[in-house]
Amino acid sequence: MTVSLLEQLIDALRVLPGVGQKSAQRMAYHLLERQRDGGRRLADALAESMERIGHCKRCRDFSETELCPTCASSARDAQLLCAVETPADRLAIEQATGFRGLYFVLQGRLSPLDGIGPRELGLDLLAQRLEEGEVRELIVATNPTVEGEATAHYLAQLARARGVQPSRLAHGLPLGGELEYVDRGTLSHAFGSRVEIRE
Amino acid sequence: MTVSLLEQLIDALRVLPGVGQKSAQRMAYHLLERQRDGGRRLADALAESMERIGHCKRCRDFSETELCPTCASSARDAQLLCAVETPADRLAIEQATGFRGLYFVLQGRLSPLDGIGPRELGLDLLAQRLEEGEVRELIVATNPTVEGEATAHYLAQLARARGVQPSRLAHGLPLGGELEYVDRGTLSHAFGSRVEIRE
Ligand SMILES: [Zn+2]
Ligand SMILES: [Zn+2]
Repeated sequence: MTVSLLEQLIDALRVLPGVGQKSAQRMAYHLLERQRDGGRRLADALAESMERIGHCKRCRDFSETELCPTCASSARDAQLLCAVETPADRLAIEQATGFRGLYFVLQGRLSPLDGIGPRELGLDLLAQRLEEGEVRELIVATNPTVEGEATAHYLAQLARARGVQPSRLAHGLPLGGELEYVDRGTLSHAFGSRVEIRE
Repeated sequence: MTVSLLEQLIDALRVLPGVGQKSAQRMAYHLLERQRDGGRRLADALAESMERIGHCKRCRDFSETELCPTCASSARDAQLLCAVETPADRLAIEQATGFRGLYFVLQGRLSPLDGIGPRELGLDLLAQRLEEGEVRELIVATNPTVEGEATAHYLAQLARARGVQPSRLAHGLPLGGELEYVDRGTLSHAFGSRVEIRE
């Protein structure tokens, strides 16, 4: 039995994260019924992106040019370097904070059991960058998970060994969160790290 | 400021139903990080589907050929015709039941306020089909909504006027549903339509 084009489309849509058979069907029908132009635009954007988006040779973020616009900008503060696990984390920080320094995207975290070591995270590139002498502070913004913390520890040593000050995002109660719903680890940490209230 | 290819991809993904900015970002990063081949396959399937999938000239379902495989099959019972609102409804019936007759896909329901009348639902085509004399029963499987019921009523008249027996899917308690959670209308209908329990 031959597979119809519609079945091929539904199957292909399942490559998207969180999209199962039912959602893929709904998406295919939606595009065919009401969004053929949008479907064509998506096809073009996908084809072009999969071919042309690579990694910035300086920060390892996704980029369609050898140097991403952030690394190429002269308006950013090259003394501050922020290391993140993923491009999504980089985007979150860029959108939420007023940070005007530069980034380094690890594209992962140390995970020896999965074969992800310093080499896979481009730490040779990062070490070289820190040795250039321009960076004064390495802001380590890995995730507050076991592997993220181990990675942060490793990066902090790497920075110190090159005379660069490492720093870490503060832990504590999330703004607007209710104390009773905060997890125990966070609450305990926030309590232990309490700060004096000044007048 | 120019829009990067990545931003174009994220924007294009939002054409998919239920996909907002956050999901689109997650999808784009997922494809770029782990599924470039899958992304390329999706691009190809989309491009080809948007161009080549049209409607079956007999049942109005999506089809890449003039006549869909179901309409073209000699193994189906042409005396039974089942009218549904959408291709998704047709697929649901095909997958859930043992129905071996043919389908007619309205691609909508009567909705005069939205300018959707008999013409938009291809009812001229349906009337002509019923006049051919082969169909004996028209199973009306429109949705149990106000517009779906109005459409069912219209289709039943259209069938009767051509000597074809109309029928409607049974209403009642969903299998495995708990009585206390069934909506009032359904419960009231199921109660009124109760059937004798035979030995
Ligand atoms: Zn860069
Ligand atoms: Zn057909």
